[in-house]
Amino acid sequence: MAGRNYWKVGLWLALGLTGTGAQADEGMWLYNHPPTQVLRDKYGFELTDAWREHLQQSSVKFGSGGSAEFVSEEGLILSNHHVGSRALQRLSSQEHNYLRDGFYAPTKAEEKPCPGIEARVLMNIEDVTARVNASVQAGMSDDAAYRARRATIAAIEKESLEQTSLRSEVVTLYQGAEYHLYRYKRYTDIRLVFSPEEQIAFYGGDPDNFEYPRFDLDICFFRAYEDGRPARVRHYLRWSKAGAAEGDLVFISGHPGRTDRLRTVAELEYLRDVEYPRTLERLKRLEVLLGSYSARSAENARRARNDLFSARNARKVRDGALAGLLDPKVMGIKRMEEGQLRAAVAGNPQLADAREAWDRIETAQREIQARSREYDMIERDYGFNSVLFNYARQLLRATRARLEPDGERLEEYRYSARSSLELELFAQTPVYEDLETLKLGDSLTWLAESLGPDQSLVKQVLAGKSPHERASELVHRTRLASPTLRQEYYKGGTQALGNAHDPMVELADLIDPPARALRREVDARREAIRQAHARIGGARYLLQGASQSPDATSTLRLAFGLVKAYEEDGRRVPAQTTFDGLYRRAAEHNFQSPFALPQRWLDHKKKLNPATPFDFVCTADIIGGNSGSPAVNRNGEFVGIIFDGNIQSLQAAFLYTETQCRALCVHSSGIIEALQRVYNAKPLVRELIGK
Amino acid sequence: MAGRNYWKVGLWLALGLTGTGAQADEGMWLYNHPPTQVLRDKYGFELTDAWREHLQQSSVKFGSGGSAEFVSEEGLILSNHHVGSRALQRLSSQEHNYLRDGFYAPTKAEEKPCPGIEARVLMNIEDVTARVNASVQAGMSDDAAYRARRATIAAIEKESLEQTSLRSEVVTLYQGAEYHLYRYKRYTDIRLVFSPEEQIAFYGGDPDNFEYPRFDLDICFFRAYEDGRPARVRHYLRWSKAGAAEGDLVFISGHPGRTDRLRTVAELEYLRDVEYPRTLERLKRLEVLLGSYSARSAENARRARNDLFSARNARKVRDGALAGLLDPKVMGIKRMEEGQLRAAVAGNPQLADAREAWDRIETAQREIQARSREYDMIERDYGFNSVLFNYARQLLRATRARLEPDGERLEEYRYSARSSLELELFAQTPVYEDLETLKLGDSLTWLAESLGPDQSLVKQVLAGKSPHERASELVHRTRLASPTLRQEYYKGGTQALGNAHDPMVELADLIDPPARALRREVDARREAIRQAHARIGGARYLLQGASQSPDATSTLRLAFGLVKAYEEDGRRVPAQTTFDGLYRRAAEHNFQSPFALPQRWLDHKKKLNPATPFDFVCTADIIGGNSGSPAVNRNGEFVGIIFDGNIQSLQAAFLYTETQCRALCVHSSGIIEALQRVYNAKPLVRELIGK
Repeated sequence: MAGRNYWKVGLWLALGLTGTGAQADEGMWLYNHPPTQVLRDKYGFELTDAWREHLQQSSVKFGSGGSAEFVSEEGLILSNHHVGSRALQRLSSQEHNYLRDGFYAPTKAEEKPCPGIEARVLMNIEDVTARVNASVQAGMSDDAAYRARRATIAAIEKESLEQTSLRSEVVTLYQGAEYHLYRYKRYTDIRLVFSPEEQIAFYGGDPDNFEYPRFDLDICFFRAYEDGRPARVRHYLRWSKAGAAEGDLVFISGHPGRTDRLRTVAELEYLRDVEYPRTLERLKRLEVLLGSYSARSAENARRARNDLFSARNARKVRDGALAGLLDPKVMGIKRMEEGQLRAAVAGNPQLADAREAWDRIETAQREIQARSREYDMIERDYGFNSVLFNYARQLLRATRARLEPDGERLEEYRYSARSSLELELFAQTPVYEDLETLKLGDSLTWLAESLGPDQSLVKQVLAGKSPHERASELVHRTRLASPTLRQEYYKGGTQALGNAHDPMVELADLIDPPARALRREVDARREAIRQAHARIGGARYLLQGASQSPDATSTLRLAFGLVKAYEEDGRRVPAQTTFDGLYRRAAEHNFQSPFALPQRWLDHKKKLNPATPFDFVCTADIIGGNSGSPAVNRNGEFVGIIFDGNIQSLQAAFLYTETQCRALCVHSSGIIEALQRVYNAKPLVRELIGK
Repeated sequence: MAGRNYWKVGLWLALGLTGTGAQADEGMWLYNHPPTQVLRDKYGFELTDAWREHLQQSSVKFGSGGSAEFVSEEGLILSNHHVGSRALQRLSSQEHNYLRDGFYAPTKAEEKPCPGIEARVLMNIEDVTARVNASVQAGMSDDAAYRARRATIAAIEKESLEQTSLRSEVVTLYQGAEYHLYRYKRYTDIRLVFSPEEQIAFYGGDPDNFEYPRFDLDICFFRAYEDGRPARVRHYLRWSKAGAAEGDLVFISGHPGRTDRLRTVAELEYLRDVEYPRTLERLKRLEVLLGSYSARSAENARRARNDLFSARNARKVRDGALAGLLDPKVMGIKRMEEGQLRAAVAGNPQLADAREAWDRIETAQREIQARSREYDMIERDYGFNSVLFNYARQLLRATRARLEPDGERLEEYRYSARSSLELELFAQTPVYEDLETLKLGDSLTWLAESLGPDQSLVKQVLAGKSPHERASELVHRTRLASPTLRQEYYKGGTQALGNAHDPMVELADLIDPPARALRREVDARREAIRQAHARIGGARYLLQGASQSPDATSTLRLAFGLVKAYEEDGRRVPAQTTFDGLYRRAAEHNFQSPFALPQRWLDHKKKLNPATPFDFVCTADIIGGNSGSPAVNRNGEFVGIIFDGNIQSLQAAFLYTETQCRALCVHSSGIIEALQRVYNAKPLVRELIGK
């Protein structure tokens, strides 16, 4: 292990990079394979099972993505404003814009139920690699292997759900080298407790997003209910009195979404040359579309706000990641590492079965690439960007899936995922016809541009109309905006759905055969890639030990690091910001949007202690999906909440470098000070700190 | 001719379109082939040579694009604010933001010289088709034919310039069926006289752009100087007392940029499937880039304002045009028209030489398509979006062109274009390093995405760095921001330029061989297309007479139409708006941007007559480039200025339909009322209306 690391550091130094490799606080560790030894050696910290279990079960995952934590025994959940924004958007109307203006329920009776929102707590993990792999026989085609594996995974999940009543999910780790079963307790009655104004939660707006120093109160409190009463939770985080200070060791427990550090060069080239550029094209056209729609009126801006924020945020992430992949230094490291590993494998007769793995991945990746445009357009939502279309497809596939054996269904319609699907599908959420028409019209335009308006499926989809006419007709004629009808169709099954003659369902039906065919082709190639990675993973383990955590998979991970300043363009960037800094930044920009302050923050300025820490940075290894994760100290006490990474962290999707990569947190003391002095939220503060 | 038109109308009726064809006010007519008969028949208007010459020589074209007109004998020029915005941007600084805040020089001494801006007046036109065509011999390769034609055109232009001292330009009409020599008088000392605030000039911003009803005072006054004194002009437009009212016949004289109505279906498919999608991708990524940069600070917004406006405006134009091409009705008409014409040609032995023309165009178009990505990236500016790079290329090519015979040079470096090039190249204009780095970095990223970062030219361009690092290095090390140095290098020729070792020039030099090779390939294919169009044009003339005006070519055209209301979604859209409507619209949007009003308009509201006409629409056939064109009445008096088209006019690039297509004008009475009551611009009003 040491050998590998010195070798890696040497390589990176040769390429002019420093602060990388095993000396760094790299790693998004599995809770069932925690970095116990590293923490002991580097920080003298003894990671006990009890400490770990407490943090694990205090950690919360939202069904729609994003992290959170329990912070009181009465089921109080803390997350980010931008994680809660989907719920806030759904609760808002032209009359009450909670997303923009904030919300506070001083009593439990005033807490607002959030339809369709689900919170999950990871209860335990079981390694099921052997059972999953046993289902794949030597000599199977990729497609057969994929189907066999899928059937076994479905059986494991169903069995577990029936035995434990916990949401059960088999997670693919190390790109296919391991399979672990994750079991979650679900909370489906989630209510809104407190949210600040967007203007302070997302202070600095898109310009400051992924920048540091920052001054954001990016928080949002919810409460989990069970049987109509606040959930009594055994594990929740106690609030630290002092919070974190520079040099402190902190731990981050959350759900990083995706990294690609263990990918082969062929896979990275695919990301660089195909996936990222196309995703960015999608995001930029969406950003222009929604930006232009939003500029027309305040109500439009309200309707599109969450979509627009998501598009901008994702665009910034992808732009940063693509810049990393286009940096010859980054790709140079990846090529050299792969070359070294392949050379070691080639020289070791024990590892003969891994030798072809890289070439197999390259071939499968090339085959995926050949279908990727069609796949993105037809099976992903690139060509059909519409909530209503998505309902139609879900209804169609869910009712049909019931006629198939569980093991043959697409994974999102498996028995084990059913109740979460129903929660989302039946939720009463607003649908705006004008916005739907706009989005669907633009994506149908892109479909026609991408596959050609004279391609036969495209012609059938457009039915002799222009993309905008067709979108308008579909959105105005479908009845799927009604949750009652969606529930009725769902319960009535394929028969009821067919009798409905809903044009959106008919559209979903029209494209389903080619979409399923593409899915099947691509899934088989992905299976081939998983099998090859299983071999590479085995070889790497043999050569280097378990020195690297698996790539992020939206599942719970433990990261750690120090609260630490850094240098940028020769200037020191401090580890913490203060309220004083917030007011100075606003003044520098003449209090103009996005640097304006909410009226309440202007009114209560004098009450605030200007030296209170507001945001801070640490070296812990995080990525998108970690938003809302708690930062805790050695005692497991809450010291802050992750809300962003700095711009240098964006290429950490491929390569973590400690020199400048930083995770951004709101400081625990800043939260209390704001709740007390600006929002006068006494009951909430009492629940958090007991006074 | 009548036969053709009935046939066309029948076709369109069959496709559910009305208000199209020859009964409509279609046509962007040549001044040397005016629609005399149509005007006589339809409107009882007698178009005299004197009337026409007066309007022609009162019309002005800006070198950088856009139309204008003389409105006083002292060289006063009226155009749009958005046409003048380039000059306004260049004159502005962090201290004086004339683009945003407006400008007024009550005395001539206060008028502000606009560096690099040129105004042209078309003095006469000569048909040189026979001489140009004589240079192309039967059996020549496309490349040889192109070179021969280019040499003849260069010789004609040079000869004309030397004989007349007028800027001389051979214009390709009817896609290559005719060549006319246009001679312009140039004014190169242009000064700013008056501009309103952007907030009222572009009232409603991007949301209202290409919409109607509108409330925009989109005007800007300049003055042409000669020998340091206001130019005395013989032809200028007198201001109408009453302006235009509903039902009035009006004429538009301006420079429509480009239409594609006479293109073959193969060419339209290329636009639909390749050119428009790629241009839109470029515009949307630029809009996101500049929008995000602008949001960071007010000064950033000022620096990027003109680029951002242009990107948004062009995006809206292209989105609308692409929607037209993706409308099966529009393409259906194009296919049927082409089918009819081809059938008529096939049945007529006289027209045998035109039979293959459509197939030849399709082949050439396919060959262009195969190179178009590289061409756009390397020869157009898609991969090198930077003012500084553009200077580098201009210096490199201009100094090298001097070593070539005039007839072999690229057209933009021909003898006849030299003085305009020098005016632009030596102008003292601000260059912002941060914005340049951003734009160049993003376009180098796109270059790497498009051609692949491992392609050998891309690797040479990036020189082992990431696109952003490379852009930063180039922008910070080049010295081309200095107009003095640019002039020095230009005068010193290839030798001085080589000795300068400027990294931007070295970059331009690196890509020049492949860029020139691509240019040569594409130019040869375009020549093939021109030759084929010459045959189609001949056939069409024989079969249908001169019933259609040529596609727009950024040269002076005469259009006509009625001031006329229209229907949209079952509602009548009135022909005129008033000041009263402006204030009502602002109130509906709570005076929020982009519907806010400048302080002056709030302060002087009471002084204004609320019933004064503000903007109006007419059926005249216009397109981008017509911005700033005068609308005149039967007496040739100024009644308004074109500033936009409605959203329905965007597909007029391919198909004009009178039912809803409308040209938008600022009303002459609204201009005077605003100048008097809001701006108190007495000397200016006196110059315009004599009191």
